[in-house]
Amino acid sequence: MTEQISKDENCIFCKIIKGEIPAKKVYEDEKVLAFLDVNPVSRGHTLIIPKKHFENIFDIEEESLKEIINASKKISIFLKEKLNADGVNLLHASGKDAQQSVFHFHLHVVPRYKGDNLDTWPKSNYKELNFDELIKEIAK
Amino acid sequence: MTEQISKDENCIFCKIIKGEIPAKKVYEDEKVLAFLDVNPVSRGHTLIIPKKHFENIFDIEEESLKEIINASKKISIFLKEKLNADGVNLLHASGKDAQQSVFHFHLHVVPRYKGDNLDTWPKSNYKELNFDELIKEIAK
Repeated sequence: MTEQISKDENCIFCKIIKGEIPAKKVYEDEKVLAFLDVNPVSRGHTLIIPKKHFENIFDIEEESLKEIINASKKISIFLKEKLNADGVNLLHASGKDAQQSVFHFHLHVVPRYKGDNLDTWPKSNYKELNFDELIKEIAK
Repeated sequence: MTEQISKDENCIFCKIIKGEIPAKKVYEDEKVLAFLDVNPVSRGHTLIIPKKHFENIFDIEEESLKEIINASKKISIFLKEKLNADGVNLLHASGKDAQQSVFHFHLHVVPRYKGDNLDTWPKSNYKELNFDELIKEIAK
């Protein structure tokens, strides 16, 4: 239970926080909840969410970001020790065009195992033709 | 220039921080540096690194994590505004078995654009057969 329940009554992650939808809890403190992803890409794949509802990286407050990233370190160590993971990936999406599917900020912790054949690196044909122009555009 | 130079003389990211290797800087403050990835997967693909050398999520200090995640929010907003990105992905690898290639902690900010045909979601055949057993193993 938390005081910081969401105003979004249809948010599935808010329902998990409120206990209306069950989840396998990996970690919980006053500000964040972490639970097993129901569609894991590896053994122990965990989601970390703020108990207060934010949609994405663009609207989340710094205090919540801090709590989430600190939890990601704790959970990474935890998964390494308990499940003998050899490494972890942290993955996040903000915006539907970035493949965000649930619009409550979340950070994936994906445990990795030697020889797991998983590939978390995005395939891309993008080539930057002019770094100087690009940095000018960013700096303008 | 920074007071928090690395002890690792062979670290390429420490060399960038020290100005020994050039980089296209997107953002810099006392604690972190962000620069364009030389092998971008999308336009504006940026790396954020702590100026103090840490290898991965397992050894990085909380203070540096906070600075990096705060910078990721600033840079996400920046890339959205300056490059008209429609969303962003945050990607991180800790450990060679998690596809980490440079062993100085770094967080990728990957701007996403409607119809960019990029797929940042890992393909996996993993199926969890017993969530109850798994959560017991994690909680033990």
